[in-house]
Amino acid sequence: MYSNFISHIRKYVDLDDNSVALLFKYITPLKLKRKEFLLKEGQICQSIYFVEKGCLRMYFIDDKLNEQITQFALEHWWMADHFSFMDNKPSPYFIETIEKSEILAFTASSFEAMLRELPQMERYFRIVMQRAVAASQLRNKYTYEMSKEEFYQHFSTSFPEFVQRVPQYMIASYLGLTPQYVSELRKKKL
Amino acid sequence: MYSNFISHIRKYVDLDDNSVALLFKYITPLKLKRKEFLLKEGQICQSIYFVEKGCLRMYFIDDKLNEQITQFALEHWWMADHFSFMDNKPSPYFIETIEKSEILAFTASSFEAMLRELPQMERYFRIVMQRAVAASQLRNKYTYEMSKEEFYQHFSTSFPEFVQRVPQYMIASYLGLTPQYVSELRKKKL
Repeated sequence: MYSNFISHIRKYVDLDDNSVALLFKYITPLKLKRKEFLLKEGQICQSIYFVEKGCLRMYFIDDKLNEQITQFALEHWWMADHFSFMDNKPSPYFIETIEKSEILAFTASSFEAMLRELPQMERYFRIVMQRAVAASQLRNKYTYEMSKEEFYQHFSTSFPEFVQRVPQYMIASYLGLTPQYVSELRKKKL
Repeated sequence: MYSNFISHIRKYVDLDDNSVALLFKYITPLKLKRKEFLLKEGQICQSIYFVEKGCLRMYFIDDKLNEQITQFALEHWWMADHFSFMDNKPSPYFIETIEKSEILAFTASSFEAMLRELPQMERYFRIVMQRAVAASQLRNKYTYEMSKEEFYQHFSTSFPEFVQRVPQYMIASYLGLTPQYVSELRKKKL
């Protein structure tokens, strides 16, 4: 059960079967269809979400009323508006499934209780968060040094699964490109 | 001793005086002049650095041989190339003091040993890293929705201390603006 989640934890910390059983007490499993929402603008991000199976996107509505995508999450990835989750503040974001998905949620209170009972999970989340900081440093560097075309080429080479699974207009939104331009870049590549 | 560091830890976790004494065993304190380097391109980022006093910048050399600043750190902030630090890989970055600074360093091995001896520090770093992820989500959102002028105005309102302490051309580099443009924006504001 939840094999992607357990194998992801065991990549970083020891977790015996007894601890796995304890961990399961704190998880809220969610089976969602395509286009279901975990968070809407103005709500508090009540949980952090692990993608056991499926795909999520995070976006906000910009002042021209466009959906601006800021993050995706496939299997093994975490998703949350962390300031909203930690500080209990309304979020500017939407989090929505792109595919039928199996999501594991920790509410703020179950997250705290779980960390108190299983201190090795503090280590797991410290490592996961530190790697997320590292990834954002790298992404930030790319935005300084790459043209939008280079960014697309890099993105589609580094994450071929995304390009297969995620609609082209969503990748365009994430990269700050028009769908037409992404379509041209894709043809160029083929 | 190291009062900024200890008060920052105690903001998030309990740390009694005995634990503080244990913690000090793992710290390498560094007193640096202005324009000294903690990391240069091609080196491995050997430590993570806490700014007890002073100011750091992180930058890389772009393909036009310009210094492109990606991060600053004032008092209470952590600085590292996290992928380089965690995965022992050469860094593309430089980390340099902007002012005379007092820096507390944890090498990779002292960091690990400290976390094993003081598990509450896993919790501290999990919270610090999670807040860093949250801050990068926010910064990322701004780059999608703000013009460069709005970004500067927001930056100088949110971080007035930076604008006082950091040379104008460095703020321009960080924001992806020309120094001339930042100078115009500053005059406009006055």
